[in-house]
Amino acid sequence: MKIILKKTPKNPIIIEGFPSFGLVGTITTEFLLEHLKAELIGEFHYNELSPIAAIHKGKLINPMAVWYVPSKNIVILHTILNVKGYEWEITEKIIEMSKKMNAKEIISLEGVATDDISDEIKVYYYGNKKLEELGALPVKESIIMGVSASLMIRYKKLNCLFAAVHTQLPDSKAAAKIIEILDKYLGLKVDYHPLLKQAEEFENKIKTILQQSNKTLKEADKKSMSYLG
Amino acid sequence: MKIILKKTPKNPIIIEGFPSFGLVGTITTEFLLEHLKAELIGEFHYNELSPIAAIHKGKLINPMAVWYVPSKNIVILHTILNVKGYEWEITEKIIEMSKKMNAKEIISLEGVATDDISDEIKVYYYGNKKLEELGALPVKESIIMGVSASLMIRYKKLNCLFAAVHTQLPDSKAAAKIIEILDKYLGLKVDYHPLLKQAEEFENKIKTILQQSNKTLKEADKKSMSYLG
Amino acid sequence: MKIILKKTPKNPIIIEGFPSFGLVGTITTEFLLEHLKAELIGEFHYNELSPIAAIHKGKLINPMAVWYVPSKNIVILHTILNVKGYEWEITEKIIEMSKKMNAKEIISLEGVATDDISDEIKVYYYGNKKLEELGALPVKESIIMGVSASLMIRYKKLNCLFAAVHTQLPDSKAAAKIIEILDKYLGLKVDYHPLLKQAEEFENKIKTILQQSNKTLKEADKKSMSYLG
Amino acid sequence: MKIILKKTPKNPIIIEGFPSFGLVGTITTEFLLEHLKAELIGEFHYNELSPIAAIHKGKLINPMAVWYVPSKNIVILHTILNVKGYEWEITEKIIEMSKKMNAKEIISLEGVATDDISDEIKVYYYGNKKLEELGALPVKESIIMGVSASLMIRYKKLNCLFAAVHTQLPDSKAAAKIIEILDKYLGLKVDYHPLLKQAEEFENKIKTILQQSNKTLKEADKKSMSYLG
Amino acid sequence: MKIILKKTPKNPIIIEGFPSFGLVGTITTEFLLEHLKAELIGEFHYNELSPIAAIHKGKLINPMAVWYVPSKNIVILHTILNVKGYEWEITEKIIEMSKKMNAKEIISLEGVATDDISDEIKVYYYGNKKLEELGALPVKESIIMGVSASLMIRYKKLNCLFAAVHTQLPDSKAAAKIIEILDKYLGLKVDYHPLLKQAEEFENKIKTILQQSNKTLKEADKKSMSYLG
Repeated sequence: MKIILKKTPKNPIIIEGFPSFGLVGTITTEFLLEHLKAELIGEFHYNELSPIAAIHKGKLINPMAVWYVPSKNIVILHTILNVKGYEWEITEKIIEMSKKMNAKEIISLEGVATDDISDEIKVYYYGNKKLEELGALPVKESIIMGVSASLMIRYKKLNCLFAAVHTQLPDSKAAAKIIEILDKYLGLKVDYHPLLKQAEEFENKIKTILQQSNKTLKEADKKSMSYLG
Repeated sequence: MKIILKKTPKNPIIIEGFPSFGLVGTITTEFLLEHLKAELIGEFHYNELSPIAAIHKGKLINPMAVWYVPSKNIVILHTILNVKGYEWEITEKIIEMSKKMNAKEIISLEGVATDDISDEIKVYYYGNKKLEELGALPVKESIIMGVSASLMIRYKKLNCLFAAVHTQLPDSKAAAKIIEILDKYLGLKVDYHPLLKQAEEFENKIKTILQQSNKTLKEADKKSMSYLG
Repeated sequence: MKIILKKTPKNPIIIEGFPSFGLVGTITTEFLLEHLKAELIGEFHYNELSPIAAIHKGKLINPMAVWYVPSKNIVILHTILNVKGYEWEITEKIIEMSKKMNAKEIISLEGVATDDISDEIKVYYYGNKKLEELGALPVKESIIMGVSASLMIRYKKLNCLFAAVHTQLPDSKAAAKIIEILDKYLGLKVDYHPLLKQAEEFENKIKTILQQSNKTLKEADKKSMSYLG
Repeated sequence: MKIILKKTPKNPIIIEGFPSFGLVGTITTEFLLEHLKAELIGEFHYNELSPIAAIHKGKLINPMAVWYVPSKNIVILHTILNVKGYEWEITEKIIEMSKKMNAKEIISLEGVATDDISDEIKVYYYGNKKLEELGALPVKESIIMGVSASLMIRYKKLNCLFAAVHTQLPDSKAAAKIIEILDKYLGLKVDYHPLLKQAEEFENKIKTILQQSNKTLKEADKKSMSYLG
Repeated sequence: MKIILKKTPKNPIIIEGFPSFGLVGTITTEFLLEHLKAELIGEFHYNELSPIAAIHKGKLINPMAVWYVPSKNIVILHTILNVKGYEWEITEKIIEMSKKMNAKEIISLEGVATDDISDEIKVYYYGNKKLEELGALPVKESIIMGVSASLMIRYKKLNCLFAAVHTQLPDSKAAAKIIEILDKYLGLKVDYHPLLKQAEEFENKIKTILQQSNKTLKEADKKSMSYLG
């Protein structure tokens, strides 16, 4: 696995939102891509994961890509793939890239399990105390997994935002809450008031794609029963 | 895995029809091979997939081969094997070959799942807008898998034709529709009016071979119960 | 895996009878070994397959060996092992050996599934048309697997004899029919009239060994329940 | 896998408490870390195990770390990970580290199965007879597994303390008993009278983290059903 | 895997008793170790098998070791591990060792399945006909597995003693019978009259260890449910 860059921004903030627990990371970065006029500056080149290509609004979505927002000097890593088993390798590549870019900061967005059954969505943070002033709660006792866990272990200065994911509630609510905090933290000035509604639309869009994908996979299995090999 | 060529056409159009979802790709390329007087110019050399040899009309069918139509300068990749797990490697070899041939274009033929239950077969396209004028619908939201997906990710100029595959309807109908569009797009001048009937015959032939293969495999399993090892 | 030879015959005909579908290949080559006064000239050296040693009439049977009939200049490959997963590697070694020996011809013996429920045993051929005159039917539509399939794909001049294997009927009948044709084709002058009875005895012998082996394996499993590791 | 050290103590005693059977090793070393004012001097760098990060009291707990108690010249290896399958490699790294440090002694803490159903917790020892005077029973007949087993086989001078683990009783009781003996053996002068209560608290803390982790994993599985790949 | 020797006897007879079918090999070599005042001269160094350490009479039993009886110039390979999957590698190392020692002979002890339901224990031999005069029956038709099989295939001069193992009867009876024949064959002058009783005691001891091990493994599984990773 490697990251191929067409452009190497200097001193950016890197935001990564890999899906490991819930779709919070994917939905949040997807929203940022669209609202911050991000441009595609690179992609992950991999042979380890099954080839899956998503087409959205008639355009190919790179399944694991590097985007850039020049006006804010922010790099956004966005993926729709399940990367389980390759977290260490991806982490290594992200840290390499951050060194090449001399990144100021890496921010990890992640879902975390909770048994809090209240309707209120809570966002926790790890790292920069400034995030607490902006409404995130300090994470006290928790188990983190996925690319965020490996980044946390290998990259000592990582800042994380964790959305407490409820099984029943849609991930878009948690994503909206994260965007609200990120907006203040990074001075993004995205209009986050209609966020919840938009986040829901994003979630629906992504879920439609995922459902279609699952159906495709199932049908493929049925059909391929008759294949050779 | 490697592609061994006896002949290297210059500036051809390459058509690939690997089976990943439905048999559309295999049936379509099979039909083209027979109707365009294609000659065998190469084969995939692999150790990764189980050895399976098909004999058709008394002749060995290379399970994964490169064919050439001199009159149209078209290269056709045809396979009867399930290549799941080797899509990236095959894609790499196809792109290498296309560079060596200085190919003008690569066209991918693929099935795609749909929940449209109407009787009408729809063909979608990705890439060259000319395909829309010829009757293909633009693909808006979709998930692509298989060699077409990896080609789409790695080969930026890919053109694709996707047949919406119905679980109930035979793949031959979708193949016929794809051939009709390909015929116009490439100026093949194949007599595609009796296509549907012929495509059905092709499908039956391939299915007979596949059923025989499945039976062989099952019998082999039963018999091999008593083998050592 | 490699073939270790004590002797390298020049310009022989090579007969291979690996078990892939039914025991036809093993029974036929076993019969030839005994009736043509073959001498052991080599063995396959492998670490990939489980070590299994068969003792027959008090002598160790090499599980995968190369035999030679000087009077007929015929090399016979005989094995009692299930080689599934190693067909390509074995094929490569056989082709290497055939080049070293400058072999005139390779003949593959194989079982093939059939749904013909008549009592008559049919033998099909692929390759040399002379086999048709000797009573073998041309194979029209079929799926071949195992070492014969990989040999067929890699070694263009291969001749094959396929016995249509009935699930109900013993393989020895099919083996007897193959020997009859081979006898004429190669001028072996084995007394093939009492073949059927002998082939049955061979089959019983091999099956006894295999049953004993299976029982050993089962017992071993039961006993090894209490092993460490 | 490798151990990265920021500091290399000279002639220390090394205590390892990897979880292999029960949590005795983890609970005991956790207790020692807190009561002996240990400082983090190194960590295991691994790609082989899934990335899992635990946050405790708002701080990242290195999942597999090397700690040091300067006042006692004791190095403590502490991990919360299941290292099954990597015992030999870890053992090699520990022995390498012990050579680099010119360690005086390695002490292994381990749980061991027992069918003794009495309420009394028994601690067994292997190695230094002095441990018997301090209340440990000599181990007579036993099967040891995990990192303690591989250390025992490769590091001839190993001393071990085994807590007989009852399925019903909490591991903290066994850990408390081990700490009592270790305290005398190493002259640690930890206040081990309130140990049992504290050990229970430790156990509860670790179990809470583990339960949360299990829940996270389960939820992740449920959620990831809809992921691609 | 390698064999590390502290001492290299010259021209010894090597006896191997790896468990593959039944515990006959382990029980027999265990008995010889104790009665012939064997000294430990080496051990197998492996990373491939799970680390398991057995403690017997308070001493660590090397799970896979090389012993030596100076008075008889006999080397004994003794193991309590299930080595399935590593037979070829172990065989290679044994043959290397035998060359280094310029061994006069290798004797393999093995269990073999049988459906003979008489109470009489039968011992079969392969190789040196002298074994027949001492009471072993020649093996006529059989399937051998495990290290004995790979040794038989790779080491042409191997002598084997096979005990026909009954599922119902204890392996110790078969071991006693093998020791009786070995005693005469090698002039060991062990007092083999009370053998049966002793062999039973050995079997009980080994079985106790194995049962304890199984229980430990089961308990470990139950306990480790709550581990991370």
